[in-house]
Amino acid sequence: MNARMFRGDVRLDAIPADDRGIAYGDGLFETLRVHRGEVPWWREHWSRLRLGAERLGIPLPDEAPVREEAESLFADGGDGVLKLLVTRGAGERGYAPPANPVPTWIVSRHAVPATPDRGLCLHVCATRVASQPALAGIKHCNRLEQVLARAEAERAGADEGLMLDSAGNAIGATTANLFTLIEGRWVAPAIVDCGIAGVCRAKLLPALDADERMLSPAEVEAADAVFLCNAVRGILPVARLGAREWPSHPAVAAARIALSRLHPSFAVEPA
Amino acid sequence: MNARMFRGDVRLDAIPADDRGIAYGDGLFETLRVHRGEVPWWREHWSRLRLGAERLGIPLPDEAPVREEAESLFADGGDGVLKLLVTRGAGERGYAPPANPVPTWIVSRHAVPATPDRGLCLHVCATRVASQPALAGIKHCNRLEQVLARAEAERAGADEGLMLDSAGNAIGATTANLFTLIEGRWVAPAIVDCGIAGVCRAKLLPALDADERMLSPAEVEAADAVFLCNAVRGILPVARLGAREWPSHPAVAAARIALSRLHPSFAVEPA
Repeated sequence: MNARMFRGDVRLDAIPADDRGIAYGDGLFETLRVHRGEVPWWREHWSRLRLGAERLGIPLPDEAPVREEAESLFADGGDGVLKLLVTRGAGERGYAPPANPVPTWIVSRHAVPATPDRGLCLHVCATRVASQPALAGIKHCNRLEQVLARAEAERAGADEGLMLDSAGNAIGATTANLFTLIEGRWVAPAIVDCGIAGVCRAKLLPALDADERMLSPAEVEAADAVFLCNAVRGILPVARLGAREWPSHPAVAAARIALSRLHPSFAVEPA
Repeated sequence: MNARMFRGDVRLDAIPADDRGIAYGDGLFETLRVHRGEVPWWREHWSRLRLGAERLGIPLPDEAPVREEAESLFADGGDGVLKLLVTRGAGERGYAPPANPVPTWIVSRHAVPATPDRGLCLHVCATRVASQPALAGIKHCNRLEQVLARAEAERAGADEGLMLDSAGNAIGATTANLFTLIEGRWVAPAIVDCGIAGVCRAKLLPALDADERMLSPAEVEAADAVFLCNAVRGILPVARLGAREWPSHPAVAAARIALSRLHPSFAVEPA
């Protein structure tokens, strides 16, 4: 992994064992798509990170040096994925947050994951996303639910897992948000008591004039088209959920064109 | 922090940035009370760790070298707290667990925390423990709920926080399990959909012939006596919860005597 890490403004070679990130998953992260060395959605990701930091009471490092270190990983002008992780830093044993934490932060460069050039096959996961309003929406580092659900999807031979909330509504995939086409309108699950409010989702909601509301798995199955989205891979059409199959749909193609105007990495290849 | 850390059988100086413990809280931990260099409840803690590892699909390191390294931290024959943390080890970016993970493990020595020689003051936390059967009972590293709740308790000037589950039942404190004396019998909240099944709790349930069931906050308030317990500090009597106050109760003193027979660190000082 090509990574640089710091505690406050002190560079580290590795993470000290007293880090609250290791102890409690006491941190936040962002994964950003990099296009020719540039990070088009930096501002949006940093805003969500700040929102999460306020919610958890984690002080953020200054934005400028973080961005500088992050961009220096892509000084070759290449494409890729930037991961930014911030933890509450060092702590004594015990849950109580330290009075004056110095955050640990890690920037790392990763390859763009391969995307199948067909629609995705989804598996409905038994592992639910627990209802927890205190943590809903933000991209924190307590991700065992997603780890367990992703393992389920892999065991099922699926590309991704569809996760339900505690009440049994569809909330999203393990690494992506969900959009469904119902009666001619795009509908995304509302992120209220659980789930991650993705940056790509936030971009697409106004672009597609989409609705946010509770969505049952039956409604997902009955939808005319379904796609997943995230800030790393853009829009991923869904082709199958259990016995339900979806052919490609012009509304998904139109959504991809809309997204291509918002981030150059998601440019649509000419048919 | 006096700590030793390993990935598999390779000693590390610090934790590599690709560790899934940092990324996702993808790990488990135990905190064990050490008495004169010995770890009386090692077997019980290792059993719970194994249970958690099976649930999460994390391979455990061999027990013998872990125990050896842990005990070597207390080769001076001292008292203290041993923390043992195991993560799923290195991973590429992404939730999917690696096919053949090599676990990271950390053993560290800590001082026994000071315990007030009076009953504890509890604060009812707004942060709930989410219902998540897949993670209930085990001591995993996704602990943001406890971090937020503990911060609430500190802001309230309380010694500990009483946490409720999603349905509003009392589930325990942020770092300890709960016992209540109701109609002459000890009752502990059942750990079914959330909460940690503590090692000290498991020792006390049979010793006190206690019941396990759902317990409302009103029942806690109405109880004749209340205590918290964990494997580090033993039994901690509760003196106050909001406006409700409890004087010391002979049944709590009797429970402490029962516990003193199960672990030498919890010997009761003569009155």
